[in-house]
Amino acid sequence: MFALIVSLRIRPEKREPFLRAADANSAASVRDEPGCLRFDVVADQADPDHFFYYEVYRNEAAFDAHKRTPHYARWREAAAECVAEGGQQNTRCTTLFPKDYR
Amino acid sequence: MFALIVSLRIRPEKREPFLRAADANSAASVRDEPGCLRFDVVADQADPDHFFYYEVYRNEAAFDAHKRTPHYARWREAAAECVAEGGQQNTRCTTLFPKDYR
Repeated sequence: MFALIVSLRIRPEKREPFLRAADANSAASVRDEPGCLRFDVVADQADPDHFFYYEVYRNEAAFDAHKRTPHYARWREAAAECVAEGGQQNTRCTTLFPKDYR
Repeated sequence: MFALIVSLRIRPEKREPFLRAADANSAASVRDEPGCLRFDVVADQADPDHFFYYEVYRNEAAFDAHKRTPHYARWREAAAECVAEGGQQNTRCTTLFPKDYR
């Protein structure tokens, strides 16, 4: 499986629109995309402006399909407004455990 | 829910024992700990010596209980052997999505 770890530093004054956009994007991804197995949003307890996405897709093609969805387009618009300059860092990963990812 | 993102840089020559120890620890955690909801191990595609754990616990008390298990003690022994000096970075998080974590 393909996993993506996204570190996001936001503009402090954009917390509320960021949270709304992250929630809408993650909910739509797991609901509407058969190839998106997980889309968790977590908040760093030590930094109120720092968040992570933990996303798991059946394969890289499913991640490519994710980037063609309308909810992804809306997220990118919100990210342009809410994420700090240079504040997004993506790490492309391969899942090792669990072996039978569901 | 409480989530932990662990970034691990390993000694390149310790890849095999690291993978065995990570597998045993993650499998035992989700199997034996009612408070451990998720323990994913992922490999950074860009760096063969870089891995992440993505762990989710019902609450911080469940994470404290995790650290008192025999499999955690075995993992700490393996980590001392396999993880590079200063190569472990833990970020304590709070899950925002999904709201009904299972």
